[in-house]
Amino acid sequence: MGVVVSLDEGKKDAATIRALMDLTRADMGRVNELILSKAGSNVELIPQIANHLVSSGGKRLRPMLTLAAAQMFGYRGEGHVKLATAVEFMHTATLLHDDVVDESGLRRGKTTARMIWGNQASVLVGDFLLGQAFRMMVDVGSIEALDVLSSAACIIAEGEVMQLAAAKNLETTEDDYLAVIRAKTAALFSAASEVGPIVAKAGRSERAALRSYGTNLGLAFQLVDDALDYGGSSSELGKNVGDDFREGKVTLPVLLAYRRGTADERAFWKRSIENGETDGAALDKAIGLMTRTGAIADTIGRARHFGEIARDALAPLGDTAQKSALLEVIGFCIARVS
Amino acid sequence: MGVVVSLDEGKKDAATIRALMDLTRADMGRVNELILSKAGSNVELIPQIANHLVSSGGKRLRPMLTLAAAQMFGYRGEGHVKLATAVEFMHTATLLHDDVVDESGLRRGKTTARMIWGNQASVLVGDFLLGQAFRMMVDVGSIEALDVLSSAACIIAEGEVMQLAAAKNLETTEDDYLAVIRAKTAALFSAASEVGPIVAKAGRSERAALRSYGTNLGLAFQLVDDALDYGGSSSELGKNVGDDFREGKVTLPVLLAYRRGTADERAFWKRSIENGETDGAALDKAIGLMTRTGAIADTIGRARHFGEIARDALAPLGDTAQKSALLEVIGFCIARVS
Repeated sequence: MGVVVSLDEGKKDAATIRALMDLTRADMGRVNELILSKAGSNVELIPQIANHLVSSGGKRLRPMLTLAAAQMFGYRGEGHVKLATAVEFMHTATLLHDDVVDESGLRRGKTTARMIWGNQASVLVGDFLLGQAFRMMVDVGSIEALDVLSSAACIIAEGEVMQLAAAKNLETTEDDYLAVIRAKTAALFSAASEVGPIVAKAGRSERAALRSYGTNLGLAFQLVDDALDYGGSSSELGKNVGDDFREGKVTLPVLLAYRRGTADERAFWKRSIENGETDGAALDKAIGLMTRTGAIADTIGRARHFGEIARDALAPLGDTAQKSALLEVIGFCIARVS
Repeated sequence: MGVVVSLDEGKKDAATIRALMDLTRADMGRVNELILSKAGSNVELIPQIANHLVSSGGKRLRPMLTLAAAQMFGYRGEGHVKLATAVEFMHTATLLHDDVVDESGLRRGKTTARMIWGNQASVLVGDFLLGQAFRMMVDVGSIEALDVLSSAACIIAEGEVMQLAAAKNLETTEDDYLAVIRAKTAALFSAASEVGPIVAKAGRSERAALRSYGTNLGLAFQLVDDALDYGGSSSELGKNVGDDFREGKVTLPVLLAYRRGTADERAFWKRSIENGETDGAALDKAIGLMTRTGAIADTIGRARHFGEIARDALAPLGDTAQKSALLEVIGFCIARVS
């Protein structure tokens, strides 16, 4: 079941991240080596769990952002590789803790670490990876990069707590929801992008441009993810349609369909999201309601809005291969819903 | 039921931390203010949980070590207050995650956060406090202090994973057990002590002295804690005798009693620690066996050994009020078993 929406904006920029991958290929090789070495430990459980996550086939979009953003300002050195690895470790630690908090069984189509090694190990190995992330940042020695990334770590955790507090609450406003994803998703995209110009000693306005690009790309990315959970192909997404629904997650498509629904429809949303009545028929009905109310299409519309802000954030910067690769990423993120 | 052992070594230094408290009183006032302000958030659950922990009546030994160790080398400034607060936040984050991992219901005689707000909130608020700890360190701006504390964060997590992997394993050697507590407890005592001379820009040998003092004090502290769980007064300890036993924790008194026991006694330890047969009669028997085999007394003997190393670590330093207060802490830690 696909979501049918106009994707001109996305398609215009070619729906791939090939240019970004090409530009960062050599550096990503070093990032991958560093990931393996820093996830090493004599305590066997640590590399086991780390390797499980590392081999789980994420796109590693965040570290590529850091690398490209550093290259864009002519950076020569090793610092961006360490910062990119730290960013990926922060992300991995968050995933480990998230799966415990959400009681998830699958992540990108693979059994989650907590199902194999337990919640306890997932919490502690997450802590270890976060610690290693900080050690790598310290190793780079830039107080500014440390400031940006440690602030992001706080904001991400704060966003997760916010989400937990708002869990299953259908009265959540769109503003509240945006505040949650701004913290839990966009903050790391933002920090990943901003540390590039920081390590390259670029100026204040370059930092601000990349920060804004990252924030808005992250918002677009999360909203598209939310839409994909109610459509899109599961092979591309690595998760099954309806995962969010079955977990009772209150995402923007749900909030919009709920707000726009009749009294009967709201009662349906309460039964499914709040009381967990989420069988196949309920999922079909949910997708039907979202389609009729325009909730999915408008979630993607909101994503496109943030994508445009991300695009304009980079407008003042000179034309480089990196800039055009980063612009392509916006199109890629949005074109995933096709 | 008290543990009766000779405590000459402890008593010699007066079994209080009064001198340390007096010396750090003004600074601790600022630490407490900073704790309250940095545990603040618009996300209500965060200050709620943080305040629960903050008001739970810990002695705040670790931040006092940082403050005294900075004062000892004539530090004037605000950095030590921030680092001390960061140390306490790292400790608090560890407690939150530990209670989830150990499924604990009580901490210092109070209901644990996870019993009130759930495991999910405990994991995430722990992450938030760890993030805030790093932000404060970054704010101080000392790469050396960041290096020491971020390394400690990794080592602590590694130690916790090690402990999890060795859980309920009575074949754990004393060396293995020491490696666990060196990581999970001593590393933070060590880092807390070492960042004092670092922020005060003291020399290499002063840093090494405080690091060694902290490590060995931490080992002594943990071993005494282990012994207290099978004796000592619960009001002083803030936990009930037998908590470790009921949780099936393999601590040094258990390991020694198991190693030194007859075949029948080993079978008893397996039933209680591995299979969870830990009723009141079993606890009485466990304490009886530990007393007969000298397991408790020798655990305290090992603690005293590390206490002596901690004492000698400070020997080369000139006499200051801070040095004598830190020496008194060693006696205090050991004299808790009385």
